[in-house]
Amino acid sequence: MSKNPNQLHLNLFLHDTGHHEASWRLPEADPHANLSLAAHQYLARVAEDAKFDSVFLADSPAAWGDPGRRPSGKLEPTLLLAALAASTSRIGLIATASTSYNEPYNLARRFASLDYLSGGRAGWNIVTTASDAAAGNFGLRQQPSHMARYERADEFLEVSTKLWDSWADDAIVADKDAGVHARRDRVRRIDHRGTFFRVDGPLNVPRSPQAYPLLVQAGSSEDGKQFAAKWAEAIFTAQPTLEESQAFYADVKRRAAAAGRNPDHIIILPGIVPVIGETQAEARELDAELDRLIAPRYAVAQLAQTLRIDPERLRLDERLPADLPDEDEIEGAKSRYTLIVDWARRENLTVRELIGKLGGGRGHRTFTGTPLQVADTIQHYFDNGAADGFNIMPAVLPSGIEAFAAKVVPILQERGLFRTEYQGVTLREHYGLPRPVNQFGEAGGVSAGQGVRDVATVGAPS
Amino acid sequence: MSKNPNQLHLNLFLHDTGHHEASWRLPEADPHANLSLAAHQYLARVAEDAKFDSVFLADSPAAWGDPGRRPSGKLEPTLLLAALAASTSRIGLIATASTSYNEPYNLARRFASLDYLSGGRAGWNIVTTASDAAAGNFGLRQQPSHMARYERADEFLEVSTKLWDSWADDAIVADKDAGVHARRDRVRRIDHRGTFFRVDGPLNVPRSPQAYPLLVQAGSSEDGKQFAAKWAEAIFTAQPTLEESQAFYADVKRRAAAAGRNPDHIIILPGIVPVIGETQAEARELDAELDRLIAPRYAVAQLAQTLRIDPERLRLDERLPADLPDEDEIEGAKSRYTLIVDWARRENLTVRELIGKLGGGRGHRTFTGTPLQVADTIQHYFDNGAADGFNIMPAVLPSGIEAFAAKVVPILQERGLFRTEYQGVTLREHYGLPRPVNQFGEAGGVSAGQGVRDVATVGAPS
Ligand SMILES: Cc1cc2nc3c(=O)[nH]c(=O)nc-3n(C[C@H](O)[C@H](O)[C@H](O)COP(=O)(O)O)c2cc1C
Ligand SMILES: Cc1cc2nc3c(=O)[nH]c(=O)nc-3n(C[C@H](O)[C@H](O)[C@H](O)COP(=O)(O)O)c2cc1C
Repeated sequence: MSKNPNQLHLNLFLHDTGHHEASWRLPEADPHANLSLAAHQYLARVAEDAKFDSVFLADSPAAWGDPGRRPSGKLEPTLLLAALAASTSRIGLIATASTSYNEPYNLARRFASLDYLSGGRAGWNIVTTASDAAAGNFGLRQQPSHMARYERADEFLEVSTKLWDSWADDAIVADKDAGVHARRDRVRRIDHRGTFFRVDGPLNVPRSPQAYPLLVQAGSSEDGKQFAAKWAEAIFTAQPTLEESQAFYADVKRRAAAAGRNPDHIIILPGIVPVIGETQAEARELDAELDRLIAPRYAVAQLAQTLRIDPERLRLDERLPADLPDEDEIEGAKSRYTLIVDWARRENLTVRELIGKLGGGRGHRTFTGTPLQVADTIQHYFDNGAADGFNIMPAVLPSGIEAFAAKVVPILQERGLFRTEYQGVTLREHYGLPRPVNQFGEAGGVSAGQGVRDVATVGAPS
Repeated sequence: MSKNPNQLHLNLFLHDTGHHEASWRLPEADPHANLSLAAHQYLARVAEDAKFDSVFLADSPAAWGDPGRRPSGKLEPTLLLAALAASTSRIGLIATASTSYNEPYNLARRFASLDYLSGGRAGWNIVTTASDAAAGNFGLRQQPSHMARYERADEFLEVSTKLWDSWADDAIVADKDAGVHARRDRVRRIDHRGTFFRVDGPLNVPRSPQAYPLLVQAGSSEDGKQFAAKWAEAIFTAQPTLEESQAFYADVKRRAAAAGRNPDHIIILPGIVPVIGETQAEARELDAELDRLIAPRYAVAQLAQTLRIDPERLRLDERLPADLPDEDEIEGAKSRYTLIVDWARRENLTVRELIGKLGGGRGHRTFTGTPLQVADTIQHYFDNGAADGFNIMPAVLPSGIEAFAAKVVPILQERGLFRTEYQGVTLREHYGLPRPVNQFGEAGGVSAGQGVRDVATVGAPS
């Protein structure tokens, strides 16, 4: 299943009633969709029928934003996707999880489990979580520095990949006559001793269909891009213009090559917020209706938080204050901060205008138009070195993905740019990526004496 | 949905090819069932068709035992049960998770999510994990003491219940016109500051259908029973004889009453390992076949670990050594240790005989007989103050639960001892237990000013 360089990839970013913050206020919206399995099953099935590569769930281990503003409860993504694994058969399932607020043994195991439950369709969007609120739920008064978070993330991936490789692919023999289920010389402790973690292993889940989940990443700061160049197989990114997307694309591919990797093995997926209408006028009308529904009181408070300034300093019909902090001073989401500030200044936006743009796309490219215009834009990015595919973030759900599946996908298929049938079985096969080789030896060859020494515990788990 | 004192409860303890350690070696066994969603879906559906209250998965966050001995890979229970939530509609789903190797925020959230995904069918078997191997996967050289583990468990439950109560039941108003999704004065921080945990809250999942998962417990030591009397709504326990079961039952109900609780609100479920045959001879034959398939080399090593002695000191055809440690010296699974040693001495068993009994029931009551004999035994326990129901642990799966569902359940139903249809919707309703009241006020009434102060984070999670 090698990569078809002429075909692009599509991921659906699941987000209850849609990515526009006011989408839940539309008459047809189900304001409880965020907590509903059925609502997520429906979205995943529409995307699967349209042959999308994957669906994706964002996450943060903290209550986020004012609970009045929009549906704010979030089911834990690995569990929600496990339920979707039982409700779908082909589409990939990518869950966000934080390296700052999990233990590698537990998280590596959950993703290995998801890979089994889905028959090889698991993906992990690796984030370091830019949030003091999250830190406060895990014993800390404030979050670790940006640099410390990425250092921990790097060691977290080292531990996780060792755990996933702790069983050779040929460990299980299931020899009933001899009474040997797995060969103990093919299961090994990892005995990791590092700065952040001390983990003995082995994992208690054998090597999974994909070996391990597709590794996805979504931070765009300097540290974020270095981390991605080393570990990521796919990248979500927010790029508001074609030029910025091209620069990001070239930069990441170059970094991957410099790290000794095949640049084709890192799939770049900018976000796009399509607002689709039969005519351009119809699309614009939906856009305007959504923006009218934004409650400025919430949006201003949120913007002030991101900018780390007093909300009193933001006036709806004025520009941003001139004396904002530098990116260097931001310990949170550096790349998001810079993106917002640059955007406001470049387009000379008032706070009200900026809020409208953020409510729709939060820094991602919003595209309002007909199906043909949306397809043309996607192709233009794809043909001009700006993307290997797209992270589709409909402003309104489920209608936005229904329209995209019914109207945009057939155009892309007709042009030979998108599959009409799934060719592979696993998520990596959808993205044209190879299954990872076991770091402890080809085909899991573990030399004698390196196998398990003592994996027995005191007290059977039963 | 109040408890019907004349009806007993049934839980199916899921265990791939069965609870007998050699079950995977039978000709018909699928030795990969431990990693198969389909195999678990089948078992859950058989139990649901038979109107069982719940299914249950044990767990430990470590590789356990020799990987040669039996299928040892274990999918993470909360994920596996999330997948089963999508594949079943009525049966309760109880996952084991450790208070020693999880963070309360993450775990409380996963169980709240499971409760939403299943429409109110989640349960949590709370364990402290007796295992040095687990400790070694989480930065520790050896496990915390038995007492420290139970102290942490107690504070873990305090934090978790506060988090589950951090949203009032009436917090979500979803008022589209006013643009208010949830009332911020009905969502509160918990600001927990304790010995083991510092957690701000609120949870990022609103109060779930059951408020929180059914709280189940399975430790039978002194500390374990005190913990159960305070927190547990159901108890799994291993009691090899009627007399021991009666004593345990009376003891726990008394402790619950002493803790100010209604003793009817703590359901006691001893384990039973039924080996069912059309005739007694047929059942005995299956039993003998299983015991023949036990590989003594694994079993002796395991027994020596539990007893904390050198395996060389165990001879297959001799009794246990006389000079074993006292329970006080055991930091692992105290009650299991004592149970095994007492049993061997009481019945004057050789090591080979003891291994046969442990392979089948691991201290639980093994019962070999016809469907009528099994039903009679169950009724006898139930009628004589030894149980409120049973944790069914078939020696062989799926055949053991198929036989139990087809042959034993109808007898219990005919006698009016077991439901013929589900009466309630949630797991607590199946067990006749009330939905927990919010500790921060009836119907979630939070007085003004106690609501959220600052739940916004820097950097939106997307
Ligand atoms: C499409 C997309 C999705 C993201 N999803 C998450 C998320 O779910 N959770 C999160 O903490 N951060 C998420 N991020 C943010 C980044 O992962 C990262 O945490 C943040 O930008 C800070 O990293 P940086 O400073 O390297 O940019 C997302 C970013 C993008 C572009
Ligand atoms: C039916 C049953 C199931 C159990 N399941 C688990 C389990 O899944 N994981 C675990 O660590 N302990 C399990 N235990 C063991 C106890 O929860 C407890 O950890 C152990 O007995 C030590 O506690 P104690 O010293 O209080 O008895 C189980 C016990 C019983 C009776």
